[in-house]
Amino acid sequence: MENKEFFIGECIKLAAKGAGNVSPNPLVGCVIVKNNRIIGKGWHRKFGGPHAEVNAISDAKKKGHSLKNSELYVNLEPCPHHGKTPPCTDLIIHEKISKVFIGIKDPNKSVNGKGIAKLKRAGIKVEYGILANACRELNKFFIKSVTKRLPYVTLKIAQSIDGKIALDNNKSKYITGNESLEFVHTLRSEYDAVLIGKNTAKLDNPSLTVRLVKGRNPFRIVIDRNSKLPANLKLFTDNNADKTIVINSTDGKFIPYKNIIKALHELGINSILVEGGAGVFSGFIKENLFDDIYFISAPVIIGSGISPFRDFKITTLSEAKNIFLNNIFRTGNDLVLHYKK
Amino acid sequence: MENKEFFIGECIKLAAKGAGNVSPNPLVGCVIVKNNRIIGKGWHRKFGGPHAEVNAISDAKKKGHSLKNSELYVNLEPCPHHGKTPPCTDLIIHEKISKVFIGIKDPNKSVNGKGIAKLKRAGIKVEYGILANACRELNKFFIKSVTKRLPYVTLKIAQSIDGKIALDNNKSKYITGNESLEFVHTLRSEYDAVLIGKNTAKLDNPSLTVRLVKGRNPFRIVIDRNSKLPANLKLFTDNNADKTIVINSTDGKFIPYKNIIKALHELGINSILVEGGAGVFSGFIKENLFDDIYFISAPVIIGSGISPFRDFKITTLSEAKNIFLNNIFRTGNDLVLHYKK
Repeated sequence: MENKEFFIGECIKLAAKGAGNVSPNPLVGCVIVKNNRIIGKGWHRKFGGPHAEVNAISDAKKKGHSLKNSELYVNLEPCPHHGKTPPCTDLIIHEKISKVFIGIKDPNKSVNGKGIAKLKRAGIKVEYGILANACRELNKFFIKSVTKRLPYVTLKIAQSIDGKIALDNNKSKYITGNESLEFVHTLRSEYDAVLIGKNTAKLDNPSLTVRLVKGRNPFRIVIDRNSKLPANLKLFTDNNADKTIVINSTDGKFIPYKNIIKALHELGINSILVEGGAGVFSGFIKENLFDDIYFISAPVIIGSGISPFRDFKITTLSEAKNIFLNNIFRTGNDLVLHYKK
Repeated sequence: MENKEFFIGECIKLAAKGAGNVSPNPLVGCVIVKNNRIIGKGWHRKFGGPHAEVNAISDAKKKGHSLKNSELYVNLEPCPHHGKTPPCTDLIIHEKISKVFIGIKDPNKSVNGKGIAKLKRAGIKVEYGILANACRELNKFFIKSVTKRLPYVTLKIAQSIDGKIALDNNKSKYITGNESLEFVHTLRSEYDAVLIGKNTAKLDNPSLTVRLVKGRNPFRIVIDRNSKLPANLKLFTDNNADKTIVINSTDGKFIPYKNIIKALHELGINSILVEGGAGVFSGFIKENLFDDIYFISAPVIIGSGISPFRDFKITTLSEAKNIFLNNIFRTGNDLVLHYKK
């Protein structure tokens, strides 16, 4: 690994600390380097707050360092425009930083290379495309949002090794273990919203909150087109009830999932974790609206039971949906298999 | 890793070369070591042929080495009795080998420590229990056979990531890729027999032979209790038809799988690879007769379709069958998930 990859890696780690708190902004981390040593670091902590570059620069200054001839590393292209804060490019130029290393360009139309151009015009050396895949993965929510005007959609499917999310009688609690539940809570803390169907809401009466790890609760979307759900569900009565959004249709008819996620995007929701059940999972597959899937696979055989994509019906294998393995890891005795579209 | 583990590891590799050709004997490899250098190696190549120790000793001698004060490494306890060949212990003693390192004891009642005792009585130093888990895995067929008087049963299940072994219309060809098929052929070359149900025989008309890798064909067991299968199936007409065994019942009634595998064991079959379909897989789960399972998981979503254990029905999660992850590896784009009971 080259030095620049190491330092961009550090930016990614710093950036990730903002997960759950900066949406719809991107996750950004920044380090200032002089003589191959980090002299300042910062990250974007909160939507509306100062950008990572600003925090890193003031960290270096607070420690008494001059920034002249230093190098700045950042996972996403610095902004050249006035938003909620002044342009980062101007600050970098003002501080006489000599070289800027960037993970990826900011795909936002108002940036998209303009930040790089502005720095170069000021005589600063710029290099970009460092750990680009990792930088894209870090900001997959932001990138989907600004390029497609849709939220990033992840399906989270806890299933037995033989592909069952519940018994025939709908019993589904504790298929996967505690460590997997912790992983799910971490996901919840990072997504803007979780989404479930009516049956899951009624049968499981879930909280969908973040309890096993530290983090903020996501919005809770429940699809209930006929507004038939009982009012005493946790979703409607707990402390977090103001973060519950019910999707219903005036005529009680099916609403395409595409319309639902479009509307949610307009409400500022950039990432959705779909937590079931089979009807909802099948809908997202049929409409081809998912971006990735976490299968959490428990080492247990259930036999007859409910399959995650029960309502997705095909007659030849060519209609099957191909996905691509991105990552595997263990959570306790379970396996997490992460696939991308 | 200590030296002795390295050398037992070499024995395991040599032993594995006999896979498919030595049943019902165990897989055994042997190296002779002098001054920390291997001076002779051998393995049990073929049922009825010389044992690994005999082959390793004659290899060393052929190369002009004296065996006096050498060390012998072998993954399974040497036999102290006359079988199809003279006792290996006597040869080891005769050759004045000074020390014997053994992977695991031979659980066969006629050996089970007697080989070790005989060597010790002759003044030879003996150490055993080296890479014991790997040695047990290597000879899992043999160990099951001699300790339980039943064949080792492995289920091989090729499924989509959502746990479907076929579409609703029974189409199931090519769910998994070519590299996985090669892996299955390797398995077939190592098991004494493969076993399928009537529907799989009729719908898929499979060969169940070893074609994509080098190796001998297994026996082919097909369960057809009413003898209703058409006579023109490949199983009955190809060059290998003499290795097809049909299981039927005189009264057309269900035969417990336990009875079937017991009968097959009496015919000398020590290992069975169960290749489907759902009825047969479910039967082996219901009767708790399997030893391990290879799930070959393709990166594809099928949706509605046939589940591997469709006929295994439970009403509470406590009745689900727990299994334990042993190993994961990739075959092409597929994943092989190896679970043990």
